[in-house]
Amino acid sequence: MSSVSRVLSDHPDVSPKLRARVLEAVVQLGYEPDYLAQSLRRGATLSVGFVMADISNPLMAEIASGAEAVFQEAGYSMVLMNAHNEERLESSHIRFLTTRRVDGMLLSLSSESSRPTQRLLTRLDVPYVLIERELPPRFQAPSVVSDHRSGIRTAVSELIELGHRRFGLLTGSLDIRSGRERLAGMREALEIHGLDAGDGIAVSIGLSPANGERATEDLLDLPTPPTAIIAGGNQLLVGTLRALAKRNLKVGEDIALVAVDEVPITEFHSPPIAVVARDSTGLGRAAAELLLQRMRGEPSAGTVVLPTTFVWRPSCSPPRVQPVT
Amino acid sequence: MSSVSRVLSDHPDVSPKLRARVLEAVVQLGYEPDYLAQSLRRGATLSVGFVMADISNPLMAEIASGAEAVFQEAGYSMVLMNAHNEERLESSHIRFLTTRRVDGMLLSLSSESSRPTQRLLTRLDVPYVLIERELPPRFQAPSVVSDHRSGIRTAVSELIELGHRRFGLLTGSLDIRSGRERLAGMREALEIHGLDAGDGIAVSIGLSPANGERATEDLLDLPTPPTAIIAGGNQLLVGTLRALAKRNLKVGEDIALVAVDEVPITEFHSPPIAVVARDSTGLGRAAAELLLQRMRGEPSAGTVVLPTTFVWRPSCSPPRVQPVT
Repeated sequence: MSSVSRVLSDHPDVSPKLRARVLEAVVQLGYEPDYLAQSLRRGATLSVGFVMADISNPLMAEIASGAEAVFQEAGYSMVLMNAHNEERLESSHIRFLTTRRVDGMLLSLSSESSRPTQRLLTRLDVPYVLIERELPPRFQAPSVVSDHRSGIRTAVSELIELGHRRFGLLTGSLDIRSGRERLAGMREALEIHGLDAGDGIAVSIGLSPANGERATEDLLDLPTPPTAIIAGGNQLLVGTLRALAKRNLKVGEDIALVAVDEVPITEFHSPPIAVVARDSTGLGRAAAELLLQRMRGEPSAGTVVLPTTFVWRPSCSPPRVQPVT
Repeated sequence: MSSVSRVLSDHPDVSPKLRARVLEAVVQLGYEPDYLAQSLRRGATLSVGFVMADISNPLMAEIASGAEAVFQEAGYSMVLMNAHNEERLESSHIRFLTTRRVDGMLLSLSSESSRPTQRLLTRLDVPYVLIERELPPRFQAPSVVSDHRSGIRTAVSELIELGHRRFGLLTGSLDIRSGRERLAGMREALEIHGLDAGDGIAVSIGLSPANGERATEDLLDLPTPPTAIIAGGNQLLVGTLRALAKRNLKVGEDIALVAVDEVPITEFHSPPIAVVARDSTGLGRAAAELLLQRMRGEPSAGTVVLPTTFVWRPSCSPPRVQPVT
């Protein structure tokens, strides 16, 4: 590294042979020598870290692939660390990446209000970009997010037009932007159609199949249970499907179902399951591009919002009994 | 790091205050001081790297979680790097982890015969453990693998007993141990039951939905197509299901199907899909334990083999037309 730096900064103490070898490598790798020289002089390591809330969410793999393609193109190595949805592990990972001197970080935090993580981010001396998260305004944290609100608003509006009047929404923690936005989307749809906010019952739980199963059963046990369920997480969906099977309720006949995110079960379930889809690879790409801009000190956006799409499928059936309207 | 090392090696040039602080941290973190002192004197970084062939395989997340739990317990940080099934990227990741001086590596290589990777491994000065891979004997490479052979042998034997006589097996590359072992498992079942080896048609392809779809269509287009398909990879399964849907063939009626690995679609497909399951979390745990032993210079196993289980489900139906036997 120091040889490269000396060559690129025209240091006198460099042999002609070393200079030739370094410059050849620079050309072969296709770096812009100005940027590379600058970076290396600053002590850059040409590496970035990506702290994932939970590697077992298949969306994470797509986000990571999108980001990695951009970083590779720019000559950066990306290392991933999995926080297992544990705040303690998350701040330990951020500290680890700091000591290993990555040039920047992508963060899909497991909580937006963790004090230890917030304290670390205040002191962080490399740029970072949040993915699907937002921090209080004082952080001025750049982020790339999906427009979950409009996706869920469209889905619930479609369900209302099919005749549904009572909705159950499973969200992840409301401590995370996507949970709050999905809830806001349902409420907006109810309001637009002149329904009562109380007809949209939201259950905020950790994103796991077991939580999804229990929450779905709780919804079904209500005196007036919802006729349509929105599973706001692909791990929650697994639990919802288990609960519906246990109760012998047929998706798309006895109960309407909308999921979020395209995963293999939404396509292969019979009937196929409607989804609010996001552009996961695009999220990764956009986050990597934003981080590169920040690392280069270029002017860059604060928040990038990517659209979501509601994909209708036969799981969105009318309610079994049409309510009196 | 050097302060800690000086304290633990009783270096004279250490203030009593620093000594107290370091020892307190050592106790709080629960390290065995002897091992920690030794490691730090050797220049250990208390970090390990895990190079994954493909992060989009959901099994990888389970393997990584299993490994991380063990490393965390032992005080190590684990960083992941995704090779995207590209040999070039894989060797670049191994080089990167070497320069960042991890203390050891877990490797789920995308190919067992890549020359650049093999050359790197010959020169590697930290221990490594392969996951679901094997290298030529001269490497004496420690590895943790699943017994795919016996799982597939059991599955094909059950299908033979149901009346099937012609089988299509989609394997990943035969350049990877699991592909070869699955093929051997099918051949052993055919032999045990006195069938011709030619009645088990193996198609070796890269692990992607598109490849799985094309290969399944090729099998169905044979003059005497198989009556049972074994999708030897959870990504191939997605493609197989697409091809069967396109041809309007009902799983468990028109064609029997066995998958490998428990993923949400195998449970929620109707009918549910039989699988040869492996212990993915256990693979990660065993690999991490083996790597820790190697890093500590303790005596350790060469190869650890974990069992697989055949889980019967209704996708395993008898053939539509019973062949004359």
